[in-house]
Amino acid sequence: MSSTTTLRSLNINNINPHIKEAKYAVRGELAVRSEEYRVKLAKGSKDLPFDKVISCNIGNPQQLDQKPITFFRQVLSLVEYPPLLEKEDVLLNQLGYKSDVIERARWLLKTVGSVGAYSASAGAPGIKDSVARFIEERDGHPADPKDIYLSAGASSGVNTLLHIICASPKTGILVPIPQYPLYTASLSVLNAKCVPYYLDESKGWGTDLEAIKGAYKKAVAEGTDVRSIVIINPGNPTGSSLPVEDVKAVIEFAAQEKLVIMADEVYQTNVFMGKFSSFKGVLRDMQKEDPEKYKYVELASLHSISKGMVGECGHRGGYFELCGFDPEVQEQIYKFVSISLCAPVIGQCLVEMMVNPPKPGHPSYELYKQEWDGIFSGLQKRATALWEAFKEMEGVECGTPQGSMYLFPTISLPPKAVEAAKKEGRTADEFYASRLLDATGVCVVPGSGFGQKENTLHFRTTFLAPGTEWVGSIAKFHKEFMDEFR
Amino acid sequence: MSSTTTLRSLNINNINPHIKEAKYAVRGELAVRSEEYRVKLAKGSKDLPFDKVISCNIGNPQQLDQKPITFFRQVLSLVEYPPLLEKEDVLLNQLGYKSDVIERARWLLKTVGSVGAYSASAGAPGIKDSVARFIEERDGHPADPKDIYLSAGASSGVNTLLHIICASPKTGILVPIPQYPLYTASLSVLNAKCVPYYLDESKGWGTDLEAIKGAYKKAVAEGTDVRSIVIINPGNPTGSSLPVEDVKAVIEFAAQEKLVIMADEVYQTNVFMGKFSSFKGVLRDMQKEDPEKYKYVELASLHSISKGMVGECGHRGGYFELCGFDPEVQEQIYKFVSISLCAPVIGQCLVEMMVNPPKPGHPSYELYKQEWDGIFSGLQKRATALWEAFKEMEGVECGTPQGSMYLFPTISLPPKAVEAAKKEGRTADEFYASRLLDATGVCVVPGSGFGQKENTLHFRTTFLAPGTEWVGSIAKFHKEFMDEFR
Repeated sequence: MSSTTTLRSLNINNINPHIKEAKYAVRGELAVRSEEYRVKLAKGSKDLPFDKVISCNIGNPQQLDQKPITFFRQVLSLVEYPPLLEKEDVLLNQLGYKSDVIERARWLLKTVGSVGAYSASAGAPGIKDSVARFIEERDGHPADPKDIYLSAGASSGVNTLLHIICASPKTGILVPIPQYPLYTASLSVLNAKCVPYYLDESKGWGTDLEAIKGAYKKAVAEGTDVRSIVIINPGNPTGSSLPVEDVKAVIEFAAQEKLVIMADEVYQTNVFMGKFSSFKGVLRDMQKEDPEKYKYVELASLHSISKGMVGECGHRGGYFELCGFDPEVQEQIYKFVSISLCAPVIGQCLVEMMVNPPKPGHPSYELYKQEWDGIFSGLQKRATALWEAFKEMEGVECGTPQGSMYLFPTISLPPKAVEAAKKEGRTADEFYASRLLDATGVCVVPGSGFGQKENTLHFRTTFLAPGTEWVGSIAKFHKEFMDEFR
Repeated sequence: MSSTTTLRSLNINNINPHIKEAKYAVRGELAVRSEEYRVKLAKGSKDLPFDKVISCNIGNPQQLDQKPITFFRQVLSLVEYPPLLEKEDVLLNQLGYKSDVIERARWLLKTVGSVGAYSASAGAPGIKDSVARFIEERDGHPADPKDIYLSAGASSGVNTLLHIICASPKTGILVPIPQYPLYTASLSVLNAKCVPYYLDESKGWGTDLEAIKGAYKKAVAEGTDVRSIVIINPGNPTGSSLPVEDVKAVIEFAAQEKLVIMADEVYQTNVFMGKFSSFKGVLRDMQKEDPEKYKYVELASLHSISKGMVGECGHRGGYFELCGFDPEVQEQIYKFVSISLCAPVIGQCLVEMMVNPPKPGHPSYELYKQEWDGIFSGLQKRATALWEAFKEMEGVECGTPQGSMYLFPTISLPPKAVEAAKKEGRTADEFYASRLLDATGVCVVPGSGFGQKENTLHFRTTFLAPGTEWVGSIAKFHKEFMDEFR
């Protein structure tokens, strides 16, 4: 405690204790230190053993030179400055805009009015219509715009849903471990219980129904009011992609125990193996087969413009769709989102274009397709290169890349490294990641930031960074680290 | 309760009770009904006694045809689609962009990288530097970028600050009544206590130190841990603009009782009478005179791109600056904002341009100045027209327009109207506003949505809507209403 503590209203011991408890390693100590290194290098410092910081700690594609999709950004330039639409010939003949860019911009402006005006609280109606049509096409089942809520990225949607569900300190939410720490951090802030269930590393980090049942029963026996289960598919940090059987098993269990399913599906287009099965689609299939049994299953599925080949994190856009929710509960959700007025309207426009991109035959289609495929195959190539490097590294094990933007290898570190970590007051994975950053400029997140089984160690890395040089520098560091502590 | 309640996990009786308690009238029942009318009219309905909905319920300038500032939007078109910067001659010679537009876009892109990438959690460093320079120039005192946090509008800043301050159900925050309902709604959600203090309608809705002291003492005596005082200046919903003496008195009181000052200054350029005195500037002046006494005063001042002549609500941008906060508390604020990753980057760019607009001599200055002045005088003209209409209306009293975007007249309604309201289960001001909407299409917010002294009735209206026809329709309605219930 500093000596000035009692002179102020607020000090570390009297602010909201639930904020203090929250942990968010993705932007934690190592991320902060990596930014300091970046500033140092930018100022011309030669003191560091590397000349570039490689931010593999966060899925931030455009920070790592992923180019935005041309169609999206051309449309945004027009909705930001509509007088350009009066110069159609300049746009078409001198700036290379296609006619469908102009049409889309006109349509969006008609729908939202000005992008500088607040939209309706749950999003512009016309954009929600487009989202509904996208879901219908994806799943082969109807979707209702009134059940769709546009949000400032999926994070804001998760925040809304948890605010509604968490009614008291006894409320529990089943959260996969490892997980994206937004969930545990938000539950800390809301003073509700995280009920962890372990994913099965031996099956490519798939869901293990027995583990879920066990965690649920234990929590209920301890007096926790378990209300909901979170599924992240494709997985973050694990990179898994769930087979349809796993999705069905979760729905079956949720129906039986009356749990709200929160399906975090922001990586739905980042799938390298098999096919993405949406919870909404599978639920509707099951309802068709047995309407009575699944009629009241409550599902919230989330999507985002931040991931996939879109990668527009900075624009903060996303949506969630509700199925089976009580209308009175939906009214409260509407009120809650209205307090923060509306999601950023430019982000809403990007949601519209993500769900309704140029189609074959449209003037912008060819370039769109080429850019999309280029990003996809680049990600796949780098995932494979990284995975192959991990396979060669002593004491590192990593499953085949399946989906999302991450690999989450297991690392077995020598006892001496574990001791050295203890001396620094760190877990061994933190120690490893910290040394990696200091030696190479590569910033990853220690597995403890996501949760992991006791006596296992991991780290999460994105495979977004361009080139493969940094992969080599990880391998070199790893060898030296193992030699030092063997 | 519906018959399906027990079949689901969530129902109105088991969700978060603090969300249920929250009230947010600005987008409440009347706002929802007005949107239904708008849809009906758009579909060609002739059933309604008006042909246009006039949304005076919310400060949403661009929904009401306020034109965005050209410089801002031209720059945004370029940062959204940077390849345009390769066609400088087309921009300059055919599209009418000035050279400072191009320079600013280049600088912003250098600062943020891509607007589609997450920025640092508290905002892009270069933009925070610009905000600090703006504050220095406004107040004549230094500002430190590390104390500035970019946010998704001021609402998100208020949400962050209240999350930190509210430690338990005993935490109390002094909130002016009438107030913008974001404060009471957020305190409900956080399960903390609103400690209301009444503004003085007889002195143009200024702060009344005796009322503040009285509210504070009463709350403390009841066991409330009062931590902070909210001031909205210029006022919302009241339209007041505080003289420097009132600002000083509040700081003096906050210093004495160790209260965090939350200064909501989003209307700082919407001032028609006198001069805006920022809390930061006045605090630094007082600290210069008596450093010991005011050294540890904690102040958070909030600003936004949504109001003023900028009016870019849909872009969700703003900032708050902290003075005198404990560094350990600031670390927790950083962590909290990092959980939602970052404020929309396009909104951050608008913050930069708001605080650093074209200066005299710059190529874009003349148009910028002309647009700014045009919006300002338009607002002033409409405020005056509305105020003059109110003066003529029976039983309506309204102070001279001083600032912000609102008037908040008192209405005295006949006993028969109060009875009729009771029969509908409404307060008399709700009844009046509901009848006004149904008769004219003009949507205002009843005073009870903001809080008002017992046995007084008000409504809040913006003066943003173009034209003055709607003012006439309010007057006509009012006369008929009074005749009906006299």
